[in-house]
Formats: sequence, C-alpha cells, structure tokens
Amino acid sequence: MRILLSNDDGIFAPGLQVLHDALQPLGHDLIVVAPESEQSAASHAITISEPLRVRPYQGNHGLSGYAVRGTPADCVKLALSVLLGKPPDLVISGVNQGPNTGISVIYSGTVAAAAEGTLNRIPSMAISLDAFDNPCWESCGAITRKLVDYIEHQGLPHGVLLNVNIPNLAPEKINGFAVTTAARSRFIEIFHKRTRPRGGAYYWLDGELQITGKQAGTDVEALSRDYVSLSPLQFDITALAAMDSLRGFQDEVIPGPDR
Amino acid sequence: MRILLSNDDGIFAPGLQVLHDALQPLGHDLIVVAPESEQSAASHAITISEPLRVRPYQGNHGLSGYAVRGTPADCVKLALSVLLGKPPDLVISGVNQGPNTGISVIYSGTVAAAAEGTLNRIPSMAISLDAFDNPCWESCGAITRKLVDYIEHQGLPHGVLLNVNIPNLAPEKINGFAVTTAARSRFIEIFHKRTRPRGGAYYWLDGELQITGKQAGTDVEALSRDYVSLSPLQFDITALAAMDSLRGFQDEVIPGPDR
Repeated sequence: MRILLSNDDGIFAPGLQVLHDALQPLGHDLIVVAPESEQSAASHAITISEPLRVRPYQGNHGLSGYAVRGTPADCVKLALSVLLGKPPDLVISGVNQGPNTGISVIYSGTVAAAAEGTLNRIPSMAISLDAFDNPCWESCGAITRKLVDYIEHQGLPHGVLLNVNIPNLAPEKINGFAVTTAARSRFIEIFHKRTRPRGGAYYWLDGELQITGKQAGTDVEALSRDYVSLSPLQFDITALAAMDSLRGFQDEVIPGPDR
Repeated sequence: MRILLSNDDGIFAPGLQVLHDALQPLGHDLIVVAPESEQSAASHAITISEPLRVRPYQGNHGLSGYAVRGTPADCVKLALSVLLGKPPDLVISGVNQGPNTGISVIYSGTVAAAAEGTLNRIPSMAISLDAFDNPCWESCGAITRKLVDYIEHQGLPHGVLLNVNIPNLAPEKINGFAVTTAARSRFIEIFHKRTRPRGGAYYWLDGELQITGKQAGTDVEALSRDYVSLSPLQFDITALAAMDSLRGFQDEVIPGPDR
C-alpha cells in the first residue's frame, strides 16, 4: 500500500519514526509529510494568512518526505493536493506522545491530520500512546502493523476515522482491543498566572480531562483497563435531535435594523 | 444577561463592534475577550507551548474587555476560568466576516470560540455574515438582538451550539429564518506555488467548498435562498453507526513486538 504518514508532534518526533520503522519492512510505499515543528493541540487549524514553506526531509532508516511550516491539517492537504502524485491508500497520523481520548479529539492535531484523509475519502487512522513521559514504544509498532493489515483487507466504513489509543505497556501486559466511544468529557482548565519581569500578566494553559458522561465503553475506560482503544469518529456535527426544538424560529420575521 | 463576546477575526474586527453596539442599548452586561490578532481558520486550536499574554482593551462606544495573544478557544477558556468573576449567561462569537457553513464549521475559529461555551454548559452561538468583501452589517445587529431575546426566554438544548449564518443583504431583502443542517461537504484545495527570491518553494492554501451530500435543508442552501441559516451543532463525534462493523477486532490478540 501507499501510505501517507503525518503527525502533530513534528517531523523529528520519535513516534513518526516508530510508524515508519514498523511498516517499512512489510514493503509498503511510505511517504512522510509532517510539520517542521511541534503542533500539539493545533486541532483542524489551517494556515490561510501565511504561505506554507516546504522542504524535502530525510530521517533515519530511509524515512523520507517533506517538512512543512504549517499545521497537521495543512500537511495532509498539501500532500494530497500537491506533493503526492496520486492519492495514498491510507493515511496514518501519529504515533502521538500522549492520549487523544474523550473531548481531546476535537483539540488534537493528530486526529485532525487523519481527518483530512477521511474527509478526502481515504481510509485514515490516528494513533496515540497513553504517555506524555517515559513512552514505551515497543507495542506501538506491532499494533500499527496489525491495524494496517486489517484496513488493507477490510477497509474502514466511509467517512469514518479510526482513532487508536495504546496503553503505555509492553505487549504482553496489554489485555486486547476494545471498540469504544470517545468519552463525553470536558477540560477543567488550570491557568498558571505569572508576571513578566517588566510587568504585565501572562497565563499558561493547563488542564485535566473530566468525564461528564458514563465511563463504560469509552476510550478512557479502555486505557484504564489496559486495552487498546479503537474509536470510530466522524465529522458531521449537526445536532439532528435538536432541530425540531428550533423550528419555531422559522415563523419569526426578520427585524428591521431599527427594531 | 451577562454576555461574553469573542471572535476569530481579532479584537479590532468590525463584526465584534457590531455585536456590542447591537446589545449594549438593551442593558445587557457585555464583556469582550478576543484574540489580539486575526485567527481565522484556527479551529479548536489551543496554545500549550507558549503562554497567553493578556491586556485590558477599550474599543468604541464603551466596548471593553481583554485582548489575548492566543486563539479563539484560548480566549473563551481564559475568560471562563480567570477573567470573568462568574460564568456568563451566554457566549456569542462573531460576527465573522465570511460564512461558516458545511465542513467549514470544523475549521472555524468563530465556531470554536462558541464551542468552548457549549462544552462548559453555557448557551452559545456563533454568528457569521456571508461576505468576505463589502460586508453589509446592517442586518446583523437586528438579527443578533432577536436571537439573544429568543435564547434569553427559550434557552438552547443542552450541549447544542447555535451556528448562525446571515445573508449579506439589507433586512427587507432577507426572506426569513431556516433551521438547517451543516451541508456535507469538503474543501477542494487550490495551492498556489511560488518561489522565494533566493530559491525554495512555498505554497498559498486556497480552496472552495464542494457539497458532497444533498443540498436541500442545508446551511448552504438557506444562504443561497436569502434565508438566515440556524444550524444546531454538537461535539460528540463518535460514529456510533460504525461501531458494530469494528467489533470483530475485539477477537484479535495483541501481537508481540517481533510478530
């Protein structure tokens, strides 16, 4: 398969090399298009008020492709429109250092890069490791190979992105795979206030995921039980169930500017 | 009502002043927390590798609040956690110069700012004007007042953001309000390649929305028929219908690192 690899941790990130090194021995045709610097929490941001600088890049063990001064979504858009001659068979984004579970999926650049594949009708997955520190990459390569084999033979449902979260454990300590929902959750922000030496406040954004719905069957629960979490995601965000409650507004008249 | 105003066009944008000037005469308690510079297409990006600089800001006609060196989502998070003493009754983001319809809703900083309100259980709406150039702001104020009055008395369904798109027409030329879905669509990218004077390629991202589903009942159709589009949006993106098709994977075993 022709596989496009990207991420949000940047083209030098070890998780990207993990993807490459796992898939290259299987004879897949791999190309990397990734941000030249870290773009964590970039979400689906795209760069429209500045141009995108692109440079050829060579990493270790034959990893090659392009570094882009832009966001993860920029990278995949540019890859699909310009840099790759023909569309890839698969887009993989990751392996992110840190989980992308619950509401994190809407802030994640890792998920957004894969979403660009999904929106362009290419099977796509985002892979994240449940560790900010002391990552144990050992399991990620083997699980990536297994998932790629599955997608090669079974495909993915149309319009669906596979969001994968891997426990930070050696393979023999992982209990299996669980198909999950993204946990209903929100971030509880913690802002650290500091003062500049010459005066003026600034704030560091920090926060914690708070589960607001049930935990059973979610990505957060799967990781807590040492399972690999597989969540199907889609990007049609209309709240269909809420449409009827707004219909009354259709009887309202447009007010004049001075009413 | 206590109303938090934000946007993605930046604190100097005319659309923000339009919101303020429309609502201030009604006696609402208004506070602005907006990006100090334009953040169009910032999506739900949040700033985690740099701190957020915050400065008090005074605009025209009594508009006051804070300018933040960050994204729209940063602004609303900071407002809700730190800058506002108590939570607002309503968050309004806009008025954006340019529509936010179809798949644009996932790239929009305007929608993301309102989404931070929704995710924090505060009624929230995003308002956009269907014009990049020659904006006719005349209708926006009157329609905003009408929507605020509706939300004050009827509220919004839990977890639902109201995404409003206004035709760029005088009030008497607008046909009414339509409750719509976000059109299934994608961007067809057009990258403009240029070369730096000292060599090296760069690209400008441009593109057009392509409708991929039916047009009837969508936000795009409503604008084309000179109606104000009201779309309810939600942020739980699990593809529930696709879960069964992946269940077979739960029978797979975790491969060892060398398998």
